[in-house]
Amino acid sequence: MTAPQAHFQALGVVHRTVHRADPAAVELLSRHGVSTVHEAMGRLGLMQPRIRPIYPQARMCGTAITVLLQPGDNWMLHVAAEQIQPGDVVVAACTADSTDGFFGDLLATSFVSRGCRGLVIDGGVRDVRDLAEMGFPVFSCAIHAKGTIKATLGSVNVPVVCAGALVHPGDVVLADIDGVVVVPAHLAQQVAEAAQAREDNEHAKRQKLAGGTLGLDMYAMREPLAKAGLRYID
Amino acid sequence: MTAPQAHFQALGVVHRTVHRADPAAVELLSRHGVSTVHEAMGRLGLMQPRIRPIYPQARMCGTAITVLLQPGDNWMLHVAAEQIQPGDVVVAACTADSTDGFFGDLLATSFVSRGCRGLVIDGGVRDVRDLAEMGFPVFSCAIHAKGTIKATLGSVNVPVVCAGALVHPGDVVLADIDGVVVVPAHLAQQVAEAAQAREDNEHAKRQKLAGGTLGLDMYAMREPLAKAGLRYID
Amino acid sequence: MTAPQAHFQALGVVHRTVHRADPAAVELLSRHGVSTVHEAMGRLGLMQPRIRPIYPQARMCGTAITVLLQPGDNWMLHVAAEQIQPGDVVVAACTADSTDGFFGDLLATSFVSRGCRGLVIDGGVRDVRDLAEMGFPVFSCAIHAKGTIKATLGSVNVPVVCAGALVHPGDVVLADIDGVVVVPAHLAQQVAEAAQAREDNEHAKRQKLAGGTLGLDMYAMREPLAKAGLRYID
Amino acid sequence: MTAPQAHFQALGVVHRTVHRADPAAVELLSRHGVSTVHEAMGRLGLMQPRIRPIYPQARMCGTAITVLLQPGDNWMLHVAAEQIQPGDVVVAACTADSTDGFFGDLLATSFVSRGCRGLVIDGGVRDVRDLAEMGFPVFSCAIHAKGTIKATLGSVNVPVVCAGALVHPGDVVLADIDGVVVVPAHLAQQVAEAAQAREDNEHAKRQKLAGGTLGLDMYAMREPLAKAGLRYID
Amino acid sequence: MTAPQAHFQALGVVHRTVHRADPAAVELLSRHGVSTVHEAMGRLGLMQPRIRPIYPQARMCGTAITVLLQPGDNWMLHVAAEQIQPGDVVVAACTADSTDGFFGDLLATSFVSRGCRGLVIDGGVRDVRDLAEMGFPVFSCAIHAKGTIKATLGSVNVPVVCAGALVHPGDVVLADIDGVVVVPAHLAQQVAEAAQAREDNEHAKRQKLAGGTLGLDMYAMREPLAKAGLRYID
Amino acid sequence: MTAPQAHFQALGVVHRTVHRADPAAVELLSRHGVSTVHEAMGRLGLMQPRIRPIYPQARMCGTAITVLLQPGDNWMLHVAAEQIQPGDVVVAACTADSTDGFFGDLLATSFVSRGCRGLVIDGGVRDVRDLAEMGFPVFSCAIHAKGTIKATLGSVNVPVVCAGALVHPGDVVLADIDGVVVVPAHLAQQVAEAAQAREDNEHAKRQKLAGGTLGLDMYAMREPLAKAGLRYID
Repeated sequence: MTAPQAHFQALGVVHRTVHRADPAAVELLSRHGVSTVHEAMGRLGLMQPRIRPIYPQARMCGTAITVLLQPGDNWMLHVAAEQIQPGDVVVAACTADSTDGFFGDLLATSFVSRGCRGLVIDGGVRDVRDLAEMGFPVFSCAIHAKGTIKATLGSVNVPVVCAGALVHPGDVVLADIDGVVVVPAHLAQQVAEAAQAREDNEHAKRQKLAGGTLGLDMYAMREPLAKAGLRYID
Repeated sequence: MTAPQAHFQALGVVHRTVHRADPAAVELLSRHGVSTVHEAMGRLGLMQPRIRPIYPQARMCGTAITVLLQPGDNWMLHVAAEQIQPGDVVVAACTADSTDGFFGDLLATSFVSRGCRGLVIDGGVRDVRDLAEMGFPVFSCAIHAKGTIKATLGSVNVPVVCAGALVHPGDVVLADIDGVVVVPAHLAQQVAEAAQAREDNEHAKRQKLAGGTLGLDMYAMREPLAKAGLRYID
Repeated sequence: MTAPQAHFQALGVVHRTVHRADPAAVELLSRHGVSTVHEAMGRLGLMQPRIRPIYPQARMCGTAITVLLQPGDNWMLHVAAEQIQPGDVVVAACTADSTDGFFGDLLATSFVSRGCRGLVIDGGVRDVRDLAEMGFPVFSCAIHAKGTIKATLGSVNVPVVCAGALVHPGDVVLADIDGVVVVPAHLAQQVAEAAQAREDNEHAKRQKLAGGTLGLDMYAMREPLAKAGLRYID
Repeated sequence: MTAPQAHFQALGVVHRTVHRADPAAVELLSRHGVSTVHEAMGRLGLMQPRIRPIYPQARMCGTAITVLLQPGDNWMLHVAAEQIQPGDVVVAACTADSTDGFFGDLLATSFVSRGCRGLVIDGGVRDVRDLAEMGFPVFSCAIHAKGTIKATLGSVNVPVVCAGALVHPGDVVLADIDGVVVVPAHLAQQVAEAAQAREDNEHAKRQKLAGGTLGLDMYAMREPLAKAGLRYID
Repeated sequence: MTAPQAHFQALGVVHRTVHRADPAAVELLSRHGVSTVHEAMGRLGLMQPRIRPIYPQARMCGTAITVLLQPGDNWMLHVAAEQIQPGDVVVAACTADSTDGFFGDLLATSFVSRGCRGLVIDGGVRDVRDLAEMGFPVFSCAIHAKGTIKATLGSVNVPVVCAGALVHPGDVVLADIDGVVVVPAHLAQQVAEAAQAREDNEHAKRQKLAGGTLGLDMYAMREPLAKAGLRYID
Repeated sequence: MTAPQAHFQALGVVHRTVHRADPAAVELLSRHGVSTVHEAMGRLGLMQPRIRPIYPQARMCGTAITVLLQPGDNWMLHVAAEQIQPGDVVVAACTADSTDGFFGDLLATSFVSRGCRGLVIDGGVRDVRDLAEMGFPVFSCAIHAKGTIKATLGSVNVPVVCAGALVHPGDVVLADIDGVVVVPAHLAQQVAEAAQAREDNEHAKRQKLAGGTLGLDMYAMREPLAKAGLRYID
C-alpha cells in the first residue's frame, strides 16, 4: 500500500522543480496594489486579514517557494532556503495555528543572500526591529519572541493553504498594507493586464470624483437604487 | 399593515434632513482628546476598542452622517456621499460582522470633495497607503483588500449602533488614537465646556505630579485606602 | 483575453460532473472517528477547530458537493441542492469570514430529500433546534439567526478552501465531535485501510494501558527521554 | 450647567415607569422562533452571535427591564430586581467588555420570585448547573465563576446597547438557540402578525421541499441565476 | 555557570515528590462548586473562562500533578502518567498557545488505571465522545482531532501557569461548569471551612429571596445606593 | 482562622520591601533583545503575544514593581507609584480580562518623576499620543479611552501572573517589539552572560549566512533531515 502521505500535501517532501510565473508578468504585477490585483483576479485569491505587515511600508512581489511547517518547529524554513532563487518569496503555512516566532534576522540574512524578496507566514516572527532595518518585508499573523525547535518534517514546494488561500509553488504572491493576494502562475500575465486596465480606468474616475461628480451619477446608480426601493425622506 | 421596516433602523431609507450639532461646539470639542471628552460625557459614548486608526496620526472631529451597511456591500456609502456637507464625518455600521474592504481611495476622493473630515466604519477598508498619503483619517475594525458588491439596500441617516455605541445623524464624533467617542448633538456645547474644565484641571495636576507629588496625596487617597483595609508590609 | 475568472476557484460556475470516492471506501471510512482518520492520513486534512457540531451527537460521512459562498448570501446553496446525490454531504466555504445564518430547516428539508447526509459550513446556521430534531448533522463556525440574501454568484463543485482545508468535489468528508477531516477521493480506500489497521492496533494498546502498563514502557520511551536529558528529582 | 450625564444613557438613574409592549402581542411573538421574528422585523434587531444560551433548551420571551452595568460590578442587577413585573425579562449591557460572573443562582431565585422569565447579559454568569436545574433561561457571552463587586452606579430602564442591539425598556426580547432578537414595543403586534404569516408560508414550502421540489424551481431562481451569468459545466 | 534552566519552571525535569493537600480537605472542597470556593479564596485562584468542560456534567476535584507541555507535543503527558497517585488530577500548561489534540482515550485509559480523577489542559483534546462515555472529566480550551508528536522535553511537577492561574504540584484543583479554581495545598482546609460557611449562609439567603425579599433590603443596599447618588424617576 | 486571603496573591496588601535584581545585571540584560534573552532563559519567561508596544520604538528594561488590579479599577496604580524607585518598571496584572484604559499621561508623569522606566499592563491604556511624545514605553493588550474607577483593593508587590508569565517583585522585565520577557532576580547575572554568549555566537553566524552559507550546512542539518526521512524530488 502506498503511504497515505502520497497526499497532495505530503509531509517530508521537497520538490526541487518549481514552475515559476513568467518574470515579466511578475514585474508587471509588482506595479499594482493588492486591492487592484485582487479585483483583477475576479475578487479571489486573498489571504485572510489576520496576515499583517510587520512594518507599515512592507511591500513585496515574487514567485512562491511554499513551506508547510509543524507548530513550534522551523526546520523546514532552513530546508526552504536552499530552494530560493532570486525573485522568489517564501510562503509558509502551518499544520496548526501557532504564533511562535518561526523566523528572525538570521534566517532573513540567509534568505536575502539567496535573493529572496520577502516572507508570508501564517505564524509568528521575531527580531522585528532588525527585519525592519534590513528592509526585509514580512507579513505574519503574529509577532512573538517565542523560539522554535527543529525536530519534525514538514514539506517544501507542495501546494499549501496559507491563511485561507491555496498557494502553489511558483505562483505570484503580492503583499502590501492591504493584505496578501495569490496569482496562479499561469494567470500572471492576464491578471497583470487586467490590473493595468483597471488602474487606467480608476485614474479617470478619481479625477471625476475629485471634481465633485458623485459615484451615484458616475456609476449610474440612481435608477437601480430606486428600483430596489430606496426612499428619500426630507 | 405598516411594514415592520417602519422600525427605528429601517432599511432602504435616506434621511436628507440632519440636525447637526452647533459648529461652534464641534470646534470646541475638536480641541480635546477622546479620553478627555469621554470623561466629560460621564464615561459614556465610547465605541469598542477594536475600532482603530489606520495610521497612528489619524484624528478627526465632525458631525455624523450615519450609514447602515449590509455585509460585503458598500452601495450605501455611495448614497451617503451625496448627503455629506463640509464638516461632516461618516459613521458606518453593518448589519453583521464583516471585515471586507468597504472603502478605498476612490470613495475617499469623493468624500473629500464633499468636505468630509473622516470615516468610522465597523468593517474593513483598503487602499490604506493612499488614504494615509491623502491624510484622510479612517477608523476601522480591519484592513482588507477584499472587494464588496453593490446589491442590497441599507440606510443613510438613521440611528445606528456602531461598535457598541449608538450614533444619531448630526451627533459629534471625535476620534483619535485612544478610540472613538460620540457626543449627542444637543449635548455638544456642555460636553465641550466640561472637557475644557477637565483639561484646565489636569494641567495643574500634571505639574504637581511632575514635581514629585504622589497621586495618593494629591487625590487624598490614603484615608479611603486604609478604610478599605489596605495593609502595608515591610 | 480569457477572463481571470478562469481561475481554479472561478466564480459563477457549476460543475455537474463529480468524481466521487468509491462508495465502499466511504462506508469503510464512516466506521472510524475523525481523529483516527486524520492520523491515518499522515496527520493532514483537518479543518480548523472553530468548526463545531451544532449538537454533540452530530456525525456524518459522505462525498463532497462543494460550494463557494459570498458573505451574507446563500444563493449558491440552492444551486448546490440540485447537484446532491444520495450519499453526498455539502461543504460550503465563503469568500470572507461571515457568521450569518446561511442555512436553516427549509434548506435542510430540501437537502434531505436529495439524500444529503450533512453539511459543513464555514459560516453560521439557524433553526438549530429543528435541525437537531431532524437529526441532520451540521458542522459550522457559528449559530446565528441573521438572514442572508440571494444576489451574488459563487460556485458549486469547484475546489474550495474551507476552514483551512482544501476540498475537491467528490472527496470524502468525515465529521464528528473531534472535528472535520477531508480524504481525497483517490486515497479513500487506502486511508480506510490504514485507519482500520490503526484501530486494531489501538485496541490492544487500550487493553494494556487499562491493565496498568505505562505508555513509558509500552512505547519504550524511557531511553529516548533519558537521551533527551530528562532528569528525575526526588 | 446641566450635567453631561443628562445623556440618553445617563448613569445613576432608575426609571420606574416602563411602557411595556402589549401582553397579547408578547404572547403571539413567543410562539415563534428568533429566526422567524428577525425576518419579520425586516432582518433587523438581532444581537451579535456571541450571546449564547447557557443550556441548549433555554428559550424565553418577555418585556425588557434594561440594566447598564459597570465591568465587574453587579450592583444594578439588585436594583433592577425591584423593577421586575411578571412577564418581564432582564437585559443587561455593560459599559465595557467583561466576562465576570455577574449573575448566579441567588439573583435568579430573586428574579423568579418577581415573575421574571429570563436574562440576557453581555457578560458572564455562574452557578450554571443550578440555573439549568431551575429551568431559568439565561443568554450570556460567557460562563465564569469570577465574582463581582457592588460599588459603582449604572442605570436601570434606560435605553442600552446590548451585544450590538439597541434595547428600550418595555421592548419585547425573544431568545432561543438561534440568538436574541429585540422587537420595539410599538411594533410588537405587527411583527407578530408578520411572523405568523411567514410561518404559515414556510409550512407550505417545507412540504414542497420535502417532496423533492427544488428551491431553484419553487423560488423561480433559474432565470435570475442565468441572467447573473451562472454557467453549468458537465 | 549553572544553566539558566535552573529557573522556577525549568524544562526537562520531573519532580517525584509532591506535597499533596490533605485528603480530608480535598474531600471537603469537593462538596462545593467552583464559584463558592473561588469566593472563599477571597476571589482569587480562577483560571480564565476559555477553559471549558468537554461535556456539561464534567466535574472533578483532586490534587494536582502539573505538566508543562511544548506546543504540538504530548510526550510529557506520558511521563506524568507514572507520577499519578489515586486522587490526583493532571493540570497541563503549554509554553505557547496550542489547540492541538494532546490527549485522547488511550491516555485517559492510562490515567484512569492510575486513579486519576480528571484533566485540565490549556490546549486541545480529542476522542471526546469516548472520554464522555468513560465519564472522564476534561476541561480544555479546545477540541481538535489534530495529533501531536513526542519530541521535546517539558517538565512534570514544576509550578506552572495554566490559563492565567499559578498551580503548584499538590494544590487542590476543583472544576465544574463554572470554571476551574486552584486552592494552594496549605490553604485547603481553611478554604474548605470558609466555603462551607458561605454555603450555609447562602441557603438562608436563598430562602428569603425565594419568598420575595429583595436583595436591596436583605443586603441593606438602599442607603449606600442613595449615598452614591442613585436617583429614581417615575 | 487565618483569612484565605493569606494566599500567595493576597488582595489588599502592599509589600514595601522588594528584593531587586542586581543593577549591574539589569544593565547587562538591557543590551539585548527580548528574543535573545528568552533563548538564554532556556525558552521560558515570555508573556503572551497579545501584549504589544503602544508605539513601535518602545523598549524598556528594569526591575519589577508588581500590581494586581481589579477590572475597571486603577486605584492600585496610584498605590504602586509610591513604591517605585529609579530603575523600576511597573508590571500590572488584572484579576479578570479588561481592556479599560487604566493608565494615561497623568499617571505616566507621576511614574516618570519617581524614575520609572516603563509599564507592562494586561489591560488597556489611553493618552497614547502623549505617552509616545513623552517617550514613556508602555506594553499593553489594548488601547482604549475608557476611564476606570478607584474603589476596590488589589495588591502591590505580590507575585502576579501577567499575560501568562509569573512575575515576582524585583524580577527583571525586558520588553521590546518582539514581546516581554521576565528574568527572575536571582538569575539575572547568569542569563545576561548567556545572552551575551548567544549574541557573540550569532554575530559569526550572521556573517556566514550573509556570505551565502546555508543553515543546512552551518547547522549540519542534512544528515538528521535525511534520517528523519526527508525526500528530495526533482
